[in-house]
Amino acid sequence: MHESCGLFGIYAPKKEVAQITYFGLHSLQHRGQESSGMAVSDGKKIKIHKQMGLVTQVFNSQIIKSLKGYISIGHNRYGTCGSSSLINSQPIMLTTNLGTLVLAHNGNLINVKNLKKSLYLKKESFTTTSDSEIIAKLIAKADGRSWEKKIINGLTELKGAYSLLILSKNQLFAVRDPWGIRPLALGKYNGGYVFASESSSFGNIGAIFKKELKPGEIMVVDKKGSRTILKNQASKTAFCIFEYIYFSRPDTILNNQLVYQTRLNAGRLLARQSPVKADYAIAIPDSGTSAAIGFSQESGIPFIEGLLKSRYIGRTFIQPEKKIRKLGVRLKFSPVGGLLRNKDIVVIDDSIVRGTTMKGLVGILRKAGAKKIHLRIASPPLVSPCYLGVDIERYSELIAYKHTLKQITEAIKADSLSYLSLKNLKKAIGRVNCGFCLGCFTGKYPLEINK
Amino acid sequence: MHESCGLFGIYAPKKEVAQITYFGLHSLQHRGQESSGMAVSDGKKIKIHKQMGLVTQVFNSQIIKSLKGYISIGHNRYGTCGSSSLINSQPIMLTTNLGTLVLAHNGNLINVKNLKKSLYLKKESFTTTSDSEIIAKLIAKADGRSWEKKIINGLTELKGAYSLLILSKNQLFAVRDPWGIRPLALGKYNGGYVFASESSSFGNIGAIFKKELKPGEIMVVDKKGSRTILKNQASKTAFCIFEYIYFSRPDTILNNQLVYQTRLNAGRLLARQSPVKADYAIAIPDSGTSAAIGFSQESGIPFIEGLLKSRYIGRTFIQPEKKIRKLGVRLKFSPVGGLLRNKDIVVIDDSIVRGTTMKGLVGILRKAGAKKIHLRIASPPLVSPCYLGVDIERYSELIAYKHTLKQITEAIKADSLSYLSLKNLKKAIGRVNCGFCLGCFTGKYPLEINK
Amino acid sequence: MHESCGLFGIYAPKKEVAQITYFGLHSLQHRGQESSGMAVSDGKKIKIHKQMGLVTQVFNSQIIKSLKGYISIGHNRYGTCGSSSLINSQPIMLTTNLGTLVLAHNGNLINVKNLKKSLYLKKESFTTTSDSEIIAKLIAKADGRSWEKKIINGLTELKGAYSLLILSKNQLFAVRDPWGIRPLALGKYNGGYVFASESSSFGNIGAIFKKELKPGEIMVVDKKGSRTILKNQASKTAFCIFEYIYFSRPDTILNNQLVYQTRLNAGRLLARQSPVKADYAIAIPDSGTSAAIGFSQESGIPFIEGLLKSRYIGRTFIQPEKKIRKLGVRLKFSPVGGLLRNKDIVVIDDSIVRGTTMKGLVGILRKAGAKKIHLRIASPPLVSPCYLGVDIERYSELIAYKHTLKQITEAIKADSLSYLSLKNLKKAIGRVNCGFCLGCFTGKYPLEINK
Amino acid sequence: MHESCGLFGIYAPKKEVAQITYFGLHSLQHRGQESSGMAVSDGKKIKIHKQMGLVTQVFNSQIIKSLKGYISIGHNRYGTCGSSSLINSQPIMLTTNLGTLVLAHNGNLINVKNLKKSLYLKKESFTTTSDSEIIAKLIAKADGRSWEKKIINGLTELKGAYSLLILSKNQLFAVRDPWGIRPLALGKYNGGYVFASESSSFGNIGAIFKKELKPGEIMVVDKKGSRTILKNQASKTAFCIFEYIYFSRPDTILNNQLVYQTRLNAGRLLARQSPVKADYAIAIPDSGTSAAIGFSQESGIPFIEGLLKSRYIGRTFIQPEKKIRKLGVRLKFSPVGGLLRNKDIVVIDDSIVRGTTMKGLVGILRKAGAKKIHLRIASPPLVSPCYLGVDIERYSELIAYKHTLKQITEAIKADSLSYLSLKNLKKAIGRVNCGFCLGCFTGKYPLEINK
Repeated sequence: MHESCGLFGIYAPKKEVAQITYFGLHSLQHRGQESSGMAVSDGKKIKIHKQMGLVTQVFNSQIIKSLKGYISIGHNRYGTCGSSSLINSQPIMLTTNLGTLVLAHNGNLINVKNLKKSLYLKKESFTTTSDSEIIAKLIAKADGRSWEKKIINGLTELKGAYSLLILSKNQLFAVRDPWGIRPLALGKYNGGYVFASESSSFGNIGAIFKKELKPGEIMVVDKKGSRTILKNQASKTAFCIFEYIYFSRPDTILNNQLVYQTRLNAGRLLARQSPVKADYAIAIPDSGTSAAIGFSQESGIPFIEGLLKSRYIGRTFIQPEKKIRKLGVRLKFSPVGGLLRNKDIVVIDDSIVRGTTMKGLVGILRKAGAKKIHLRIASPPLVSPCYLGVDIERYSELIAYKHTLKQITEAIKADSLSYLSLKNLKKAIGRVNCGFCLGCFTGKYPLEINK
Repeated sequence: MHESCGLFGIYAPKKEVAQITYFGLHSLQHRGQESSGMAVSDGKKIKIHKQMGLVTQVFNSQIIKSLKGYISIGHNRYGTCGSSSLINSQPIMLTTNLGTLVLAHNGNLINVKNLKKSLYLKKESFTTTSDSEIIAKLIAKADGRSWEKKIINGLTELKGAYSLLILSKNQLFAVRDPWGIRPLALGKYNGGYVFASESSSFGNIGAIFKKELKPGEIMVVDKKGSRTILKNQASKTAFCIFEYIYFSRPDTILNNQLVYQTRLNAGRLLARQSPVKADYAIAIPDSGTSAAIGFSQESGIPFIEGLLKSRYIGRTFIQPEKKIRKLGVRLKFSPVGGLLRNKDIVVIDDSIVRGTTMKGLVGILRKAGAKKIHLRIASPPLVSPCYLGVDIERYSELIAYKHTLKQITEAIKADSLSYLSLKNLKKAIGRVNCGFCLGCFTGKYPLEINK
Repeated sequence: MHESCGLFGIYAPKKEVAQITYFGLHSLQHRGQESSGMAVSDGKKIKIHKQMGLVTQVFNSQIIKSLKGYISIGHNRYGTCGSSSLINSQPIMLTTNLGTLVLAHNGNLINVKNLKKSLYLKKESFTTTSDSEIIAKLIAKADGRSWEKKIINGLTELKGAYSLLILSKNQLFAVRDPWGIRPLALGKYNGGYVFASESSSFGNIGAIFKKELKPGEIMVVDKKGSRTILKNQASKTAFCIFEYIYFSRPDTILNNQLVYQTRLNAGRLLARQSPVKADYAIAIPDSGTSAAIGFSQESGIPFIEGLLKSRYIGRTFIQPEKKIRKLGVRLKFSPVGGLLRNKDIVVIDDSIVRGTTMKGLVGILRKAGAKKIHLRIASPPLVSPCYLGVDIERYSELIAYKHTLKQITEAIKADSLSYLSLKNLKKAIGRVNCGFCLGCFTGKYPLEINK
Repeated sequence: MHESCGLFGIYAPKKEVAQITYFGLHSLQHRGQESSGMAVSDGKKIKIHKQMGLVTQVFNSQIIKSLKGYISIGHNRYGTCGSSSLINSQPIMLTTNLGTLVLAHNGNLINVKNLKKSLYLKKESFTTTSDSEIIAKLIAKADGRSWEKKIINGLTELKGAYSLLILSKNQLFAVRDPWGIRPLALGKYNGGYVFASESSSFGNIGAIFKKELKPGEIMVVDKKGSRTILKNQASKTAFCIFEYIYFSRPDTILNNQLVYQTRLNAGRLLARQSPVKADYAIAIPDSGTSAAIGFSQESGIPFIEGLLKSRYIGRTFIQPEKKIRKLGVRLKFSPVGGLLRNKDIVVIDDSIVRGTTMKGLVGILRKAGAKKIHLRIASPPLVSPCYLGVDIERYSELIAYKHTLKQITEAIKADSLSYLSLKNLKKAIGRVNCGFCLGCFTGKYPLEINK
């Protein structure tokens, strides 16, 4: 499971911001590993650099040095829509009558076809296949003589998930869609302002968390300071609940709740909801660890690291011959055999998508000598695809779509399996003043989807 | 001196054309070494790959294999306008109401500012800074329900040099501007058709030269065969005379004349026009060799290879410390000292731009023992920049702009210097049914330039 | 702190072993990240490939395919001695009268000077600066007409740490030094045999752990099967105790003890030995996690992941400007601020070397709001360098060398600091039938060191 | 056909010589393109860098900067013996009792088996498979307490071709074998001395040619200056005649004769020896050009560039599908069709090895419209392999080995074919005070070969 993107932007008068942006993007690497890019303005000229690869591969000190200026936006991409290539990498730059505009987007639009159709009618054409170009074009074509007005007017037709950072030669804009589907936070940095998909970035660069943007809020930072230029919250907001479960770093604050705490809570509630007798509680690292610790605390079953995850698994892995292909999951995960032999264990993970990795892991644990293997999943079954920025595109990819709990348990060869209920998941998150998008768990989306 | 681009395109039913395109681009490498790209259509889908570097660096067999289809266009870029980066590399792809269009351009427009202004008025915006995107946008916005009509209508406002290859999912278009400034030729290949900036490409891939497109001619190739869809020759045509002098490969045919022959002729006429006594005639390799041989044949002065050019000089050269920097030209060129000692020599080159290399070479020859060094240049003095596709952008780059023949001779430290007259240059080319652009020699351009 | 090397070897009749070796080396990546290499024999010819970089960077499927054969040895290198360059990368190949020999070495010799001197007297010379070439040369020069005898005779002069894998065209040898300083294990694989520095490798490739080689044991595998050809245990054995504390993967078995269990035990004993009141027990990930869990279990202080470690920190990090350099540790580690605010915490790590990282981490935790910060280290203070294969070369690198506990506590700015006693460390490991090298904790080495 | 190597060395007190060595190696790139390396001494320490690739790929300014010192030797390798890999790249460094020795070798030994056998008897072993390590080992093991004496004593057993440059921490040695098979020249540079395989290098770096080393001469340069320490010329010297025909750059002086002049002479004598009627004389570029010019001058047949050679052919060429593979030679060479149509031509090249390229070229010229094609080769037929440093290893590679002139003519599909006689080749070279190795033309070698 992959999310689309990570955004980072900064406005810091008289500072060189490219390096800070580099560090910011690095701290958001988990939100996108396919390409990275940044655009920097010195008030007169905007320079951009983007390429396929990790942040540390895309930039070097020479490139950073050449990106002079005090305003910047950056982007890590996984790529929900648009084919995965350099042409679609972000941010996207647009030269217009009003000057140059650079835009970075996290999310996914659901009315792309209609938007394209109406732009086609206006004889518009596109050099990429990404949503982001459509958004940039809508802004460029919108009414208004300033970027401020064009941005306010240009986004009215958009439906779907979009957190945006937008750079003009002397302004930095931040946008959250009216439903508040994807997160976006504001911080203070050294006399300037910083925006990031996750507040967790702020700690890494020495910035201070100020607030999360409200659903439908548009902010601008320029020489006059920072201010909100639009409040346009939808009647029903729909924050992506999966940000709590998997995407965001545990040290992120979402709707005033610390993600780590919600995961601990989920583990605790899971232990209460679906108790089981076992010698050890172990996690599928790293995504299941926080819930496993919570589970252990609540149940009293000792938490141990029964599965280790390699720190050296990259993308350059050679294609093994068929017989050895099964080793894939074996190379990524190593069971601590000596601990597991003849033990009953409860295994906690954050979620199950296809079930293939989990099946492999159950096999590994079984081979390492585990007697009973009970699975506890710290979120409800995934039964429906995401159309709003997460890379689960088809029903067929979801084991829980057409299978009962019993069937899944058998397919995975576990001794028992239990999912956290939606009610408990909400309880784990606690009181927040927003609605949730629960589409992947319920098939009901906050916006009408034309599949 | 560098020209902007090389174009190659092919339509060959039931063939895989990516590899042929690769070979075609390779044969045009001398027209652009900064980036290379190609787009291939299988009738349904268009795939594109482009990158910075030489043809052999940009493509490998895996990439070639992935570019499936029977229609393609390719492009080597040097880059006259638009900064030199991947974003501006060609061909450029545009998704429109009518489907996808891919365009490759050789030349330079002179009314870009006006074109942009009128497009801005229509709220158009741009993702690159190249002329090619403007042309593609004009086509996409033009009247007409077919690419055929849109191309005819979309190009009417263009002023300047443009040879174009345009690919839709099932058609291949070839365009020459009404003045016929840049070349473009048609060949037959194995039941299909091939276009290239130079007819010399055809030999390398086993195609047969059919004709050069006429100024203002637009051709299309599709399932109905090949045909001319527009004849729009300007009253005064203006073929770039420098294609004969330097850019085109000697085995190219331009306006029915073999380039090599025109260079031999130029050398012969130069010998007649500016005779000199010498022991040997030597060339500045490789550009001056053909004229030097002609000079030798006419004058009877024996031609020898008195200067050798390294085959291993690339772009990765390390920056030498100051004192050694002079070695630059020394590493590229080696005098055959044993031959030159105490000899009077006549040195032939095709042209002089800044004069710095020539001055270095005179020094090298002098140090190698040459007594008298007479320079003979097989074209007139360059006194004015090019605005139509050649990379000479400023007067200050031209030694002949503000210096007399005597001053240049002294600056270069030659014993004598003589340029071929414009009259003789034309005579060397012979009878052609086109006018010439002589802007760089006369300062008079076929189109009004807004500098 | 870095150890020198990881070894992997396999003999599997009628199998292609290069790919298994690749996976084996991958599973030992944590023991050396500077260079990697392998040599493979098909019974007639030996092929070798080695290069700077991680396993996944050094090899690709084409290279793996070209390394044909059924016997192989591989090596990951960190490089304790010999400068860090390709010339010193391993394994090392030697062509001799008896055929070709390839050798891979984990450890460090302490009598290199003398060995070199005596080889120099025999007019021997060297093409590398590594210990491994010396060992290979001693074997090649030793008495005996078979590799078996030469290996037995050639190693008698060696003093220090050496686990070796040696490949001839049809035999595979495995050697542990008489003191048993570095580990080496034997497994069965699919009708053949496999050796590895850590038994943890076996699980990853589907092999079964058989035994650890005894100190001073030399084994050979060839067409006659596997057998021990020398038993030469020293009177006092001296297994590197740091393998338990830090180097080996937790799922490794050393002297019949599971490493993970010893770390859990160490944490438990630490809690009993140096109790403290705190709200949370947190680990410095990943090295301190197991001990922290043990500490939590014993003390009842809840374990939480209060510090997160980035999975994307590599070596290509750009050099930040001075002011931002402090960010280094900040980018690697992120505190989960929301949890720590106003809490008293106990922080567990496996060891302290220089103290600089720890000081940085204390600062980070303090900034994140932690009130009291108590450090508990699951091993004794490091007071003396290692001469037997671990990369701690100077006293000046060790904060505990000339500082008291109080001074260290102040330097690191912790509220309290406590190290596990040596007695408790031994207790954590439990009953093993070997002595330990405790040089780094006591300054007393199992062999006399000529510093 | 490829030669083994190029050597370059310099001793220049108080200068940084790495950059000069870089330029020197660059000027010798034509003698070896597989790997490049250099070692530099600052009087105390020797640093070395070597890698696969061209000089410009192996070194960059950072590496050059790190190679501090005033003495250096460098090497470009093609690789006659020893497999083509980094392990065998040169120069080779050896640490010995007397300090470090670095050696670079051009040539090929013919008694390697015996030398290895006797070294094996002394229990010597090897880490590479190159001749150069054997030579270095023999020197290291030789009698004598100084490098001077060891070098004199160590080389006495060598049979074959060897020009050597040897570096100790404060001395630079240059060696030519007693038969003088491979060239080596001495120059003066800025208060220091320089050695190179070809005197042509000196011009490129601003050094002055002093002399060629005599066969059997050993020179040393150190703080006492330069001097000859051995004169050991064989009774019969045997300079490789192919250096004149193909290997050396035309501006090289060999045995006091300018290579370019000997090639011009060869062309002239060829015209006299095997006259033919033709419209044009054309060369196979670049190797046949000088002879073709001589041929033209003597015969009066006008020389034209009827074949062009691409400047962009590298090694990264993709593997074309079978049908297109023939295009290989087509991409490298382009005929100037317009000139050749219906013309009789005489085509001059320096030599024919396999005949496959020549056959391809005849086909290309024929297709371009040439009527009669007469081949004239400026050296005798190659009938025997080279064992002394040239990469022709098997009889089967030589079309002239088992075929008559008539058969070759037919195979190549030429209208006539003629080789320069050995007598005329010698005449072309003129009076030199050395014998020649003519093994490839006669099968008789200056030293007995154990094939």
